[in-house]
Amino acid sequence: MLKRDYDQVCSIARTLEVLGERWTLLVIRDVFNGRRRFDQIQENLGVARNVLTSRLARLLEEGILEKRRYQDHPPRHEYFLTEKGLELWPVLISVMHWGDRHLAETGPPMLIRHKRCDGLVDERGICESCGERLEARGAYTEHGPGAAAEWRRSAAA
Amino acid sequence: MLKRDYDQVCSIARTLEVLGERWTLLVIRDVFNGRRRFDQIQENLGVARNVLTSRLARLLEEGILEKRRYQDHPPRHEYFLTEKGLELWPVLISVMHWGDRHLAETGPPMLIRHKRCDGLVDERGICESCGERLEARGAYTEHGPGAAAEWRRSAAA
Repeated sequence: MLKRDYDQVCSIARTLEVLGERWTLLVIRDVFNGRRRFDQIQENLGVARNVLTSRLARLLEEGILEKRRYQDHPPRHEYFLTEKGLELWPVLISVMHWGDRHLAETGPPMLIRHKRCDGLVDERGICESCGERLEARGAYTEHGPGAAAEWRRSAAA
Repeated sequence: MLKRDYDQVCSIARTLEVLGERWTLLVIRDVFNGRRRFDQIQENLGVARNVLTSRLARLLEEGILEKRRYQDHPPRHEYFLTEKGLELWPVLISVMHWGDRHLAETGPPMLIRHKRCDGLVDERGICESCGERLEARGAYTEHGPGAAAEWRRSAAA
């Protein structure tokens, strides 16, 4: 926890107190992308298990994630975004697009598309094709050219 | 620097490598809000001077800020956002609105308005009044009800 380091009357500072810890936004990204189990997230991020445990606990406490049991013996849970968590979608979209624009030399690793018309979703979460203003549930992701370039590089190595 | 901790083919991870350090996004916010000098930012954030020095150096290196000399003897500089930095506006807007919605019990501390029509700007950076899609230069900020509530609380204490 950031111990209210950013003790300011500001919604950016307050949000960073909740989301600004290392790994937190990537955990949320992973759940958005359908990784719901501890081991899936841990393996994808390569983060230390105790750190991930702490991040997930904080996200549950903040009401951003909720867990649902999918197995009783032994007890196992999956993580889902709450409505409050789903409302972080515009944050992820805007962060991702800035990175696409400035840090993705081989093109966007991931594309976000509108479920209903397959149009590309822009950095404001608006469909470039039909102009609809989308929420998280209206979109899906697919690999973009930056991901393919990375696979070719790995294969060549 | 995060030492490429988030070494992933992902624009969110890459962006967090640049912006995810503690204080960085608040430094950018301060420059957006017209605090351009080291001492202004340091005083506003209450951050250690060596930490602020490091954050500003990184932001210059990344081409998010640029500095311009405003005094020669002794040399003094002001910090400005580059175009790349100004393009972080949708990130700040979306982060701020999520905080307004979930972490601002007394209302938004800050309001963002469209320069041309004074309409409120929503979490997608779109004017609620005229519907125009805005960039950073098209908007201004003013104190919101959450700031006034905080002043009353301080005054009463």
